Amino acid sequence: MTAHAQRLAGTGRAIPWENRPAGTSDVMWRSSLNPIVTRDDVPGANSIFNSAVVRFEDGYAGVFRVDDTRRAMNLHAGRSVDGAAWELDPDPIAFTPGDDRVPEIQERFEHAYDPRVTWLEDRFYVTWCNGYHGPTVGLAHTTDFRTFAQLDNAYLPFNRNGVLFPRRIGGAYAMLSRPSDGGHTAFGDIFYSESPDLVHWGRHRHVMAPVPLSWQATKVGAGPTPIETDDGWLVLYHGVLTSCNGFVYSMGAALLDLEEPWRVLARGSRFLLAPHVPYEQVGDVPNVVFPCAALVDEDADRLTVYYGGADTVVCMAHAHLSEVLAFVRD
Amino acid sequence: MTAHAQRLAGTGRAIPWENRPAGTSDVMWRSSLNPIVTRDDVPGANSIFNSAVVRFEDGYAGVFRVDDTRRAMNLHAGRSVDGAAWELDPDPIAFTPGDDRVPEIQERFEHAYDPRVTWLEDRFYVTWCNGYHGPTVGLAHTTDFRTFAQLDNAYLPFNRNGVLFPRRIGGAYAMLSRPSDGGHTAFGDIFYSESPDLVHWGRHRHVMAPVPLSWQATKVGAGPTPIETDDGWLVLYHGVLTSCNGFVYSMGAALLDLEEPWRVLARGSRFLLAPHVPYEQVGDVPNVVFPCAALVDEDADRLTVYYGGADTVVCMAHAHLSEVLAFVRD
Amino acid sequence: MTAHAQRLAGTGRAIPWENRPAGTSDVMWRSSLNPIVTRDDVPGANSIFNSAVVRFEDGYAGVFRVDDTRRAMNLHAGRSVDGAAWELDPDPIAFTPGDDRVPEIQERFEHAYDPRVTWLEDRFYVTWCNGYHGPTVGLAHTTDFRTFAQLDNAYLPFNRNGVLFPRRIGGAYAMLSRPSDGGHTAFGDIFYSESPDLVHWGRHRHVMAPVPLSWQATKVGAGPTPIETDDGWLVLYHGVLTSCNGFVYSMGAALLDLEEPWRVLARGSRFLLAPHVPYEQVGDVPNVVFPCAALVDEDADRLTVYYGGADTVVCMAHAHLSEVLAFVRD
Amino acid sequence: MTAHAQRLAGTGRAIPWENRPAGTSDVMWRSSLNPIVTRDDVPGANSIFNSAVVRFEDGYAGVFRVDDTRRAMNLHAGRSVDGAAWELDPDPIAFTPGDDRVPEIQERFEHAYDPRVTWLEDRFYVTWCNGYHGPTVGLAHTTDFRTFAQLDNAYLPFNRNGVLFPRRIGGAYAMLSRPSDGGHTAFGDIFYSESPDLVHWGRHRHVMAPVPLSWQATKVGAGPTPIETDDGWLVLYHGVLTSCNGFVYSMGAALLDLEEPWRVLARGSRFLLAPHVPYEQVGDVPNVVFPCAALVDEDADRLTVYYGGADTVVCMAHAHLSEVLAFVRD
Amino acid sequence: MTAHAQRLAGTGRAIPWENRPAGTSDVMWRSSLNPIVTRDDVPGANSIFNSAVVRFEDGYAGVFRVDDTRRAMNLHAGRSVDGAAWELDPDPIAFTPGDDRVPEIQERFEHAYDPRVTWLEDRFYVTWCNGYHGPTVGLAHTTDFRTFAQLDNAYLPFNRNGVLFPRRIGGAYAMLSRPSDGGHTAFGDIFYSESPDLVHWGRHRHVMAPVPLSWQATKVGAGPTPIETDDGWLVLYHGVLTSCNGFVYSMGAALLDLEEPWRVLARGSRFLLAPHVPYEQVGDVPNVVFPCAALVDEDADRLTVYYGGADTVVCMAHAHLSEVLAFVRD
Amino acid sequence: MTAHAQRLAGTGRAIPWENRPAGTSDVMWRSSLNPIVTRDDVPGANSIFNSAVVRFEDGYAGVFRVDDTRRAMNLHAGRSVDGAAWELDPDPIAFTPGDDRVPEIQERFEHAYDPRVTWLEDRFYVTWCNGYHGPTVGLAHTTDFRTFAQLDNAYLPFNRNGVLFPRRIGGAYAMLSRPSDGGHTAFGDIFYSESPDLVHWGRHRHVMAPVPLSWQATKVGAGPTPIETDDGWLVLYHGVLTSCNGFVYSMGAALLDLEEPWRVLARGSRFLLAPHVPYEQVGDVPNVVFPCAALVDEDADRLTVYYGGADTVVCMAHAHLSEVLAFVRD
Repeated sequence: MTAHAQRLAGTGRAIPWENRPAGTSDVMWRSSLNPIVTRDDVPGANSIFNSAVVRFEDGYAGVFRVDDTRRAMNLHAGRSVDGAAWELDPDPIAFTPGDDRVPEIQERFEHAYDPRVTWLEDRFYVTWCNGYHGPTVGLAHTTDFRTFAQLDNAYLPFNRNGVLFPRRIGGAYAMLSRPSDGGHTAFGDIFYSESPDLVHWGRHRHVMAPVPLSWQATKVGAGPTPIETDDGWLVLYHGVLTSCNGFVYSMGAALLDLEEPWRVLARGSRFLLAPHVPYEQVGDVPNVVFPCAALVDEDADRLTVYYGGADTVVCMAHAHLSEVLAFVRD
Repeated sequence: MTAHAQRLAGTGRAIPWENRPAGTSDVMWRSSLNPIVTRDDVPGANSIFNSAVVRFEDGYAGVFRVDDTRRAMNLHAGRSVDGAAWELDPDPIAFTPGDDRVPEIQERFEHAYDPRVTWLEDRFYVTWCNGYHGPTVGLAHTTDFRTFAQLDNAYLPFNRNGVLFPRRIGGAYAMLSRPSDGGHTAFGDIFYSESPDLVHWGRHRHVMAPVPLSWQATKVGAGPTPIETDDGWLVLYHGVLTSCNGFVYSMGAALLDLEEPWRVLARGSRFLLAPHVPYEQVGDVPNVVFPCAALVDEDADRLTVYYGGADTVVCMAHAHLSEVLAFVRD
Repeated sequence: MTAHAQRLAGTGRAIPWENRPAGTSDVMWRSSLNPIVTRDDVPGANSIFNSAVVRFEDGYAGVFRVDDTRRAMNLHAGRSVDGAAWELDPDPIAFTPGDDRVPEIQERFEHAYDPRVTWLEDRFYVTWCNGYHGPTVGLAHTTDFRTFAQLDNAYLPFNRNGVLFPRRIGGAYAMLSRPSDGGHTAFGDIFYSESPDLVHWGRHRHVMAPVPLSWQATKVGAGPTPIETDDGWLVLYHGVLTSCNGFVYSMGAALLDLEEPWRVLARGSRFLLAPHVPYEQVGDVPNVVFPCAALVDEDADRLTVYYGGADTVVCMAHAHLSEVLAFVRD
Repeated sequence: MTAHAQRLAGTGRAIPWENRPAGTSDVMWRSSLNPIVTRDDVPGANSIFNSAVVRFEDGYAGVFRVDDTRRAMNLHAGRSVDGAAWELDPDPIAFTPGDDRVPEIQERFEHAYDPRVTWLEDRFYVTWCNGYHGPTVGLAHTTDFRTFAQLDNAYLPFNRNGVLFPRRIGGAYAMLSRPSDGGHTAFGDIFYSESPDLVHWGRHRHVMAPVPLSWQATKVGAGPTPIETDDGWLVLYHGVLTSCNGFVYSMGAALLDLEEPWRVLARGSRFLLAPHVPYEQVGDVPNVVFPCAALVDEDADRLTVYYGGADTVVCMAHAHLSEVLAFVRD
Repeated sequence: MTAHAQRLAGTGRAIPWENRPAGTSDVMWRSSLNPIVTRDDVPGANSIFNSAVVRFEDGYAGVFRVDDTRRAMNLHAGRSVDGAAWELDPDPIAFTPGDDRVPEIQERFEHAYDPRVTWLEDRFYVTWCNGYHGPTVGLAHTTDFRTFAQLDNAYLPFNRNGVLFPRRIGGAYAMLSRPSDGGHTAFGDIFYSESPDLVHWGRHRHVMAPVPLSWQATKVGAGPTPIETDDGWLVLYHGVLTSCNGFVYSMGAALLDLEEPWRVLARGSRFLLAPHVPYEQVGDVPNVVFPCAALVDEDADRLTVYYGGADTVVCMAHAHLSEVLAFVRD
Repeated sequence: MTAHAQRLAGTGRAIPWENRPAGTSDVMWRSSLNPIVTRDDVPGANSIFNSAVVRFEDGYAGVFRVDDTRRAMNLHAGRSVDGAAWELDPDPIAFTPGDDRVPEIQERFEHAYDPRVTWLEDRFYVTWCNGYHGPTVGLAHTTDFRTFAQLDNAYLPFNRNGVLFPRRIGGAYAMLSRPSDGGHTAFGDIFYSESPDLVHWGRHRHVMAPVPLSWQATKVGAGPTPIETDDGWLVLYHGVLTSCNGFVYSMGAALLDLEEPWRVLARGSRFLLAPHVPYEQVGDVPNVVFPCAALVDEDADRLTVYYGGADTVVCMAHAHLSEVLAFVRD
């Protein structure tokens, strides 16, 4: 990484953090600041949730899902000094075409939601659920979180939860995604795909399926950018259970092989976090914990996850990285 | 309007009101008295919601949806001095037959719910969802809110959300309704119908459909009696979005042509009010804002809407009429 | 009936007929000429079926459902000397507006199918399934089967199988119909409605429901114009059973009270005709017998029914009227 | 009952109790201690609910449904001095085979949930929803709540909510159950079955069905062990209504004939308790009141019911037995 | 077996037979006499199919599914000299109560269909799909095919395709069945149950499930009485595939352990017979081959199967027993 | 094209042909040889249909869908001298890995069906519906129809009906496909995708959607390899209508822009061929005409289409190319 890139990527600083509350031994715990972003942070917003945050320069930057009072879904950029208090742009990101074929898909804007942000080589890439005759995975890059150059969609519809790996693997760009249908999909496995150019994708490999009779029985989808560790790629993801009254979204973790990430090395049988407090249980979609980003401070053994609560607010949770790695193998 | 009718209709008085709270620019805001009616207001009630209120004599009168602890659905009359504190009759309205054919449909009572009340010519008319081999639109009239004379059902099943216009249009009585099915209908457009006699209905016209990818993507149904303005008929209505965990009911507004009300002159792309506070988010049906009545004080530019919260309680919200008319055209 | 009307209605002549085949005691039997109309009778037709036939002047006239090779559904007029060999107009009927409000619904043509034709007072009325934001019942009149004046739709969507009675009852026009939904409805009861003017309809009464665990377990819908007899109105209708592989449409019969036709006097527990031969079992919709018209020769005790086979062809079946009346009471 | 059995069954002592709160005339009221058991009572639990409690020796014992953070469902034993404060075993019950054929079904453990406990002749029997190629009714017995001997499943899948009667009836063991399907069943009637040996079951009789257009319109299932009274068997049960946003579970009551319990003598048309407070409205399954056990102090005319709230916590409610018996006949 | 029983059971005679047609090597082939029974064999029948045949005295007897022109489903007895030409009783079997509790279930007749007949100890037992608040398994016995004594239903609803074994196993009566739901079930595994008295059933064991991506992917259900061979119980069964246009029913075979019949020793991966000729492809339910009975002549190595075609007719197919046993292991 | 390639591709010879039958003016007509391939052509086959044919050397070669009597779906190669009489290999194609990453997907064979074959640059490419955790598009190449080298799947599941263009467009390989779900998909649009290497795919563009109220109202999918004409790419495709009894598959035609094939230049509103004869109406899936291949003799203005009938047999139909091009613009 060049010095310029290092500065952009904001590496090497501490991350937002609270110690584990006394009296609990949970592997992951909630921030006392939750919810850290609400509808009041953008004029005309109905809800802000399922958003992605990265270190950026001397502070933090992010891409946020903002549903307005039309219930139109858009992405807004935001900045923060400490990763917990955020200023969001009042207007959605206006993507510029990243090449001369991209306007063909920009003509038809349906929606943009559930972003992820990944530092890859020399810039940040945003992936999100982009509507083009149905949901698929949109892709864009930025270096300043002001201008975003949109690339072509990665897949045909119907797909969601596209998450880039933070480096090439075997020479190829790599992405996780969750093929689905056009509705509130009641199924969903995680797949792995490769690309030589971030435009054309192939070598699709199955990674992992739901687990019957568990918290992740209905569908699973990748959350934050995979975290490279000596043990493998740590993937935090959402798993969904269908209760008598609809879907319950919880957060879990798995380890993928470093060089062949479609091979699952370990996978936690338990959830890390499930909707147990009011801002996760009550809102536009009750009972949702939906992780989209993570910050790691390896030296301090700290992990901070950003997740959406009840499809209504943005929240943080903390854990020790070493404990999560042990949890996955439990 | 005769003097007698004027007194009955209770025109010309102020309406319940609170000013817009400091620090918000929302077009519509909630009453600090919410919820104004709860299950405690009728012995044996499970819930009271989706109810209709009008000015009456020196105060206010209303018809309320009361689900009892059988979960049987009935209509109760109620009275109020100030429009906010209500006394409800402990027993359901016992409709008398309005003509000699009506007993044929009264033999089979299934349920009565979601009333609207309209002053029309010389009396009040109540419309509601009346069960007769499936839901359809019931019709009755009263001058004293003690005796109610029931007319024949307006339509074949399946239909709901029948709302009368407050005057004849083109010489005919006029009603909005929402054809549906026998269950928790996942579709629904608003239609307009005419009648020479309030018994036989025809000239059915399509008014408006749901809007894809919006807060009103699944179905729409008229709410309070349409409000006549210089700009057209102001219709407040509910729109429904299907989330991952069921329906979300919000309130919106549209303007219809004064003489050909099936022509939509303008329609707000945003919602006016969506379920954002606990008494709208938690209850027998989470996430419901369902408007059924409105009071207007034109001189003061004030509008007060009565709506059901979470299919459990009755609430009020306020707005300036001029701002709503601007909002519709936004 | 005036002499002019008598000539129009073509009363008093024999009807197409074959005697009951030897060796069977079935109450109804198929014509050896079946199918009497096929796709070859109209250039560009995919299928011709579910059509209505009446005596007209010295021969017969009819309104036919013709699906073209776009699978667009239209009505075509046809004429016949003997009621069995038909000449169909190559172009669909172009309805003229019957009053100045009708163009409002004609702007939006979706489809026209499953016609019935009824002689009423001084002219022929056609009813059919007319698309207007979903299926409903269209209405038109003619005296020459060349020009057809369209009236307003009788009902809100969703409704099908509207069939007029051939005289006023209790001073009102009367119609049977089957409220439904917008798809391939898996339910359906027959209702009765009245009108003072053939435009506005009310006094809706429930007539009859499907019969569980029978050939008519899923839905029932009226077929030909009700036939007035001393015993009551004879209604031939279709009943549908849902098999492991979809709907099976058969024909049955019932008797309704002459003055209060929503009262069922008798109803055959068996079907009169079910899809038992290839032209009823194989085609665009396998296993369909769908009656739309009947001719009666009372003096000869003869009844000839026109029905669609497999949504593909037009067929005839014969019976003795007295035997059908006995069958209904069996 | 022998002295040993009397001691085991813990008869003759007072039960947990609070008097009816001032200002209400409800037949049943909630404990101010609610929720009495939460996820914090078992390490690694996601939720504890739908559990069964009996008098045992000098205090109380129970079998609890504990879903862990895998969302695996298991049964845990627990003990209490006062019936309100509970100590639960941290590990699930390890059933021993009750005869030499039982290991055949134990090989395949899917899940164990929604227990009931019944004192019958000389020991306690536990029934629960046991997974064996789908849900069915498991059966075990214990005298010490430490070792539990499992018998064969009572029925083929798919069945749930099996509840034993506390004595033989007509010489046979007797059980209520609710045949269902393999999913979140949207239907369900209560049936009665008999057995000579607690292994083979027959003489299945229909007891009661849902009631259309009521709080129990979708399905009904027995709750606590039936309570023998002079008036008949008092059965507390759950009834389910399907709202616009899923199932709502409430508690009701019925009286069955003492000797022919498939005959319903009386059945309350109203619910006794419905989800009206946050711990019943918000949780893993919103809007659930699910009774599984009851304690009776006949001398004091007191009834205490244990029920699950929102599929998340265990709660208590109180009533006077005589008032419930009157309520059922109301 | 006593001499009387031997005579009743008609053992030791040849069975209907045709040699394999030249030019085919199929393991099973159709009779040139097909269909052997049609609707013409019972006055007022709509269809006759899915029927069971046994040797009886000097010829053959059978129980036939006859759907009448109400589409009511009943069982009729029949007799034959040669097993191919049949005389059927014109009236349904009138079951007499086999014990004093049976009238309780006979009060409510819903339907009787898909019979099987088994010689067991000293008489013939009939099992069938008996309606009692949903489909379940009815049971009756006869020695003369004139009087049939009905026993209690074997199971709670919902169950179908109950087939008795022809001898006790491990001292118990034994039956295969297929638990299902109340509709056109889209799933279904075969289970095994035991009984000490033919009234109470228990020890339910899973036998076999559908096979994904095969002709038996949707559901499987036992057909004829299991055939005891040295290799195990030979079970012919139906397997169902869901095509783009509904279910396709084919016939397959499996071998079960003689003493523990819930253990599958071998199971053919291919179908023996699938709907390939018009009388199996066209009818009330297109594409159905449904076996219900088999005759074996061990000395001649001959097997004749009776099966229903298209839910409309009765057919026969032939095979060499030794080849079927090899096919199962293929 | 090199001489070697020309010989391989078999260009320049006449194609199977019959003139239009007298008395019809249909644009497309059936071969009198139909069906040209049946289950009898491969031992152990249940059905052979939906297959692809090309000119090859001095005759013809093809890849055929063969469902065996397990109902397993495989591809078999075949050869023909005249294009009408075929010899099929008795064993399925055994694909060799085309590169060293392909074995990863070959480990998991689910099914292979509905092939297309395209001559592209210097060899034949086969595309088909390949099962890999759900249906997706498989890809292989051959020069001799004996060995086939499999490449990676083109897309993530769920996708079907992948059809390659016969030359690069704008420098990229190009394919049509129809994203779907994992079942009997009730929706489906045609999309266009590009690839630099036949492994990685991107630049996905929407091409065309179903047409409401028409023969192609439910879904559309490309059929034969697109045919390059001066007017554009001629695409023959299947369109599906949902009738009361399931899907009806017909054949239609459209013209795509030569350089931007996602732009539709013209599209026939009518079908070219619909299931009107028994071998299309009766079989494993009634009412299916499914085109997979076409041969063109431009000099003679002849077009011969190969299509599947009723998911059971292979058929041919003929047309004049110039008339089809006119039909598309009609």
